[in-house]
Amino acid sequence: MKARVHIMLKNGVLDPQGDAVRHALGALGFDGVDGVRQGKVIELDLAETDAAKAEANVKDMCEKLLANTVIESYTIEIV
Amino acid sequence: MKARVHIMLKNGVLDPQGDAVRHALGALGFDGVDGVRQGKVIELDLAETDAAKAEANVKDMCEKLLANTVIESYTIEIV
Repeated sequence: MKARVHIMLKNGVLDPQGDAVRHALGALGFDGVDGVRQGKVIELDLAETDAAKAEANVKDMCEKLLANTVIESYTIEIV
Repeated sequence: MKARVHIMLKNGVLDPQGDAVRHALGALGFDGVDGVRQGKVIELDLAETDAAKAEANVKDMCEKLLANTVIESYTIEIV
């Protein structure tokens, strides 16, 4: 079973990496880009076959390791 | 209009960051994680209102700046 976790900075937290991308896009002539936020995506290959258990397990992983929940939010997708 | 771009290392390209996460999960007692791949997600806020044009535009951005197409693959999602 595969799980995909999206980790993004929370709204209101400065995202210098995203800003750098926005400036670079502008310098390359791409107009009409009003905002850019950059985050991480982590794809996990799990031995667990029960979707609910897998999701609970991945949530635990996010809280303990994958995300810094003070400044980052995460969403879990079981695929 | 918002676009979300997922950028992952292609299969066969070593992913040390993903391996580091896998080892750390193992050290924390999370068993049954067979593989981890880490990638980037970029959320773009676009002024363009036509979905097809926006997608073509974002594809161009990926080819020129966002992804290193030699080792990375990308998927575009218009939301």
